[in-house]
Amino acid sequence: MKEKRIFNFNAGPAALPLEVLEEIKESFINFGSSGMSITEVSHRSKWFDDVINDAVERTKRLLNLDEKFHVLFIQGGASMQFCMIPMNFLSEGKSADYVDTGTWSTKAVKEAQIQGKTIKVVASSEDKNYSYIPKDIPFSDDAIYAHITSNNTIKGTQWAKFPDTKGVPLIADMSSDIMSRSFDADKFGFIYAGAQKNIGPAGVCMAIIRDDFLNMVPNTLPSMLKYSTYANKNSMYNTPPCFTIYTIQLVLKWLEEKIGGLDKMESLNREKGQLIYSFLDSSDFYNATAQADSRSLMNVTFRLPDEDLEKRFVQKAVENDLGGLKGHRSVGGCRASIYNATTLQAVETLIDFMKNFENKNG
Amino acid sequence: MKEKRIFNFNAGPAALPLEVLEEIKESFINFGSSGMSITEVSHRSKWFDDVINDAVERTKRLLNLDEKFHVLFIQGGASMQFCMIPMNFLSEGKSADYVDTGTWSTKAVKEAQIQGKTIKVVASSEDKNYSYIPKDIPFSDDAIYAHITSNNTIKGTQWAKFPDTKGVPLIADMSSDIMSRSFDADKFGFIYAGAQKNIGPAGVCMAIIRDDFLNMVPNTLPSMLKYSTYANKNSMYNTPPCFTIYTIQLVLKWLEEKIGGLDKMESLNREKGQLIYSFLDSSDFYNATAQADSRSLMNVTFRLPDEDLEKRFVQKAVENDLGGLKGHRSVGGCRASIYNATTLQAVETLIDFMKNFENKNG
Repeated sequence: MKEKRIFNFNAGPAALPLEVLEEIKESFINFGSSGMSITEVSHRSKWFDDVINDAVERTKRLLNLDEKFHVLFIQGGASMQFCMIPMNFLSEGKSADYVDTGTWSTKAVKEAQIQGKTIKVVASSEDKNYSYIPKDIPFSDDAIYAHITSNNTIKGTQWAKFPDTKGVPLIADMSSDIMSRSFDADKFGFIYAGAQKNIGPAGVCMAIIRDDFLNMVPNTLPSMLKYSTYANKNSMYNTPPCFTIYTIQLVLKWLEEKIGGLDKMESLNREKGQLIYSFLDSSDFYNATAQADSRSLMNVTFRLPDEDLEKRFVQKAVENDLGGLKGHRSVGGCRASIYNATTLQAVETLIDFMKNFENKNG
Repeated sequence: MKEKRIFNFNAGPAALPLEVLEEIKESFINFGSSGMSITEVSHRSKWFDDVINDAVERTKRLLNLDEKFHVLFIQGGASMQFCMIPMNFLSEGKSADYVDTGTWSTKAVKEAQIQGKTIKVVASSEDKNYSYIPKDIPFSDDAIYAHITSNNTIKGTQWAKFPDTKGVPLIADMSSDIMSRSFDADKFGFIYAGAQKNIGPAGVCMAIIRDDFLNMVPNTLPSMLKYSTYANKNSMYNTPPCFTIYTIQLVLKWLEEKIGGLDKMESLNREKGQLIYSFLDSSDFYNATAQADSRSLMNVTFRLPDEDLEKRFVQKAVENDLGGLKGHRSVGGCRASIYNATTLQAVETLIDFMKNFENKNG
């Protein structure tokens, strides 16, 4: 029996590839002929070793990471990373730069400050309600790292290209665009991404750490708060979130084997973005909120002429099996999140619906 | 088609009730008629609100918790709690007592000490390889809390009854026996339990905090490390591990509606424990390692005459579809974990196998 499925434009937790969900379902009671569910298998077993090692290897291949990078899985989401990053990398007397592009990067700043760490906000787009990505940023020569948020889920902006920091290593929160495009990892000392947008269910954060950053970790931190604990034990110092990592493994396999890698994924994402932004630009009824050169290919934020219409729009969309189009409660408006797993068909169906809604209400 | 299932004696991740796994599988592609998987549903939706609220309410009913207790879900396992507990409750000048019953309680001590917190190990069973639970413990009058590990997964011991602390609030790591029996929560200021043994898959720690303990939390901690963040936002300050919490909800529903509550669960667990310990006591071939008054009803640890036989035993068991019987790598020997979801039939099958093995090798 074909199961009812909607078109899911949630910002996170978000749509996952249907093939992945079907594989999980199929093997849920008896994983890999173990006679156990993936939720019941020991993390010290060959079954789970194969899962986590495959997830790590696929990540390295997809992102073209060499030996100096280590792929870790850490619980607590990106929010836990906001505090762990300065704790691990900013010892007494060291400072870091932060670029504030709204909500999540603002929180990253706050969690460093609450620890009394020395940081400098070198650029911010707060002046225009975070509708753009800053340019010509005066990074500090002596910064240990420069922190950016590669894609801003709530404000609908994205770094089209990463900034020139004049040699300062970048740290990026890539929660909402990791694995959506290729990039040169060599500029980065540390990359992190909550899984629940592009690579899996909620409950784990992927972290990628470079050797020189790993060497900065102080021994005086509690075990679960230092990156070396995770790097030394292949993310299994204690029991990892096995089911979540398993789902990530399947998503990465789908990316490599079904989609064909990140260049292919990026061109599919560009095609989806192009379709919806062209439509928004052609309409006087809908208004994209992000500046054209800063638009996110993952989260398309837009407004309708008034809030009543926005409410009606979201409601009518749900009635038409298009879910998750309400903007974040902190900014209002509408948002279509079109991550990797959102199909071209979903975007086309959304645009058809938007045209219809405009015709009836415009 | 009936799926292949083994008898799973893993220490954690461990066996889950088959009914729960079947319900997850059944609704995995279309959860609650949402047209989405539980892994794709927004944590800000009514669907997930119902899940987490039901999990909290069932926990309160099962453990008979009144208004002064708050049920939280925190990522990072019990190991993260080892550092968060002293961080949240031991401000400058305050001290706490710890009872060392091996491995996990030893780690709890270490993670407090690494932060420079004042703690006192008031009792330890290290002298006899942690084979018993200490008695007549000299708790300190001025301790903020007394930390114990209610069940010791690796050493196979369990507090049959909680100690009289003369009014000092208890904090207990109940990772491996929460929901296995009734107890009086009023003695406890804080209770925590990694989910992956008795209540769900790996990836979340249930924490129960009393009002007076919540009031101790300092404002100066990073958001993700303070309990108030979780208590103020119903564990949804950031995206929670939705799938794991959903599974916990189903396990708690099974406990209430299928088993009939904790008194019923406890008598089932006693029946299983009685069966296997009686058998061990009747045999000269197998030897239970924990002292009789300290035996765990969750993790039954035993030795065979020599290590070669133990290796053969574990191997033969696997061939007979009895999994997870190898002791923890730090102590060797054999271990049968018989948590809530382990059926009486599983225990009987194990004993039959053990009798056969003894007959052939004894």
